[in-house]
Amino acid sequence: MEIKQIPDQKAFSPEKMKKVNLFETDRMFTDIYCFEPGQVQKPHTHEGADKIYCVLEGRGRFQVGREQRHLGPLEITLAPSGVEHGVVNDGPGRLVVLVFMAPHPDAPRLPHPP
Amino acid sequence: MEIKQIPDQKAFSPEKMKKVNLFETDRMFTDIYCFEPGQVQKPHTHEGADKIYCVLEGRGRFQVGREQRHLGPLEITLAPSGVEHGVVNDGPGRLVVLVFMAPHPDAPRLPHPP
Repeated sequence: MEIKQIPDQKAFSPEKMKKVNLFETDRMFTDIYCFEPGQVQKPHTHEGADKIYCVLEGRGRFQVGREQRHLGPLEITLAPSGVEHGVVNDGPGRLVVLVFMAPHPDAPRLPHPP
Repeated sequence: MEIKQIPDQKAFSPEKMKKVNLFETDRMFTDIYCFEPGQVQKPHTHEGADKIYCVLEGRGRFQVGREQRHLGPLEITLAPSGVEHGVVNDGPGRLVVLVFMAPHPDAPRLPHPP
């Protein structure tokens, strides 16, 4: 039984937003993303995979589709498959986000329905 | 862009542990599980799906496989496919757990590899 204490897993880089993997299977991954002030996850899209962002610490501006909203601790949102999404830490403090993505982007996919 | 404030989503039932769905897609679901003291999620197994438990509030005893461990806030664990898992809120306070599961148990599955 593998247990992780999220506060112990936080790691920041002066270069760019740091992703720390907590758990990974063939079906999903669970990460924390750690942003210094001003760091970003550039808007991008995953076809066929959904992402959950749950803020644990700090505040940031989250984009899903054309909309942008500020989220703080224990606010959670979904970036569905095919919808552009990204994050900007435009606040004065650090931002830590729990991220869940399924399926794992490297996993084999079911064929599209006809 | 759908945003939920997890504290506003908490709901408890005197009858049994309460599951509150936050997000659901064809690929995964994200719930919170809310336990009054003494309430349980009985040990069970999902073939072909992985579950993440992340404690947000309180403490509880988590079982994964044959092992049982107490987890508190921001402690996170994985119950992999095919491994029995469950929860007992044996503490004096309420227990709130963020739960991710993928794939969604109702989703179509890839055939097992030969």
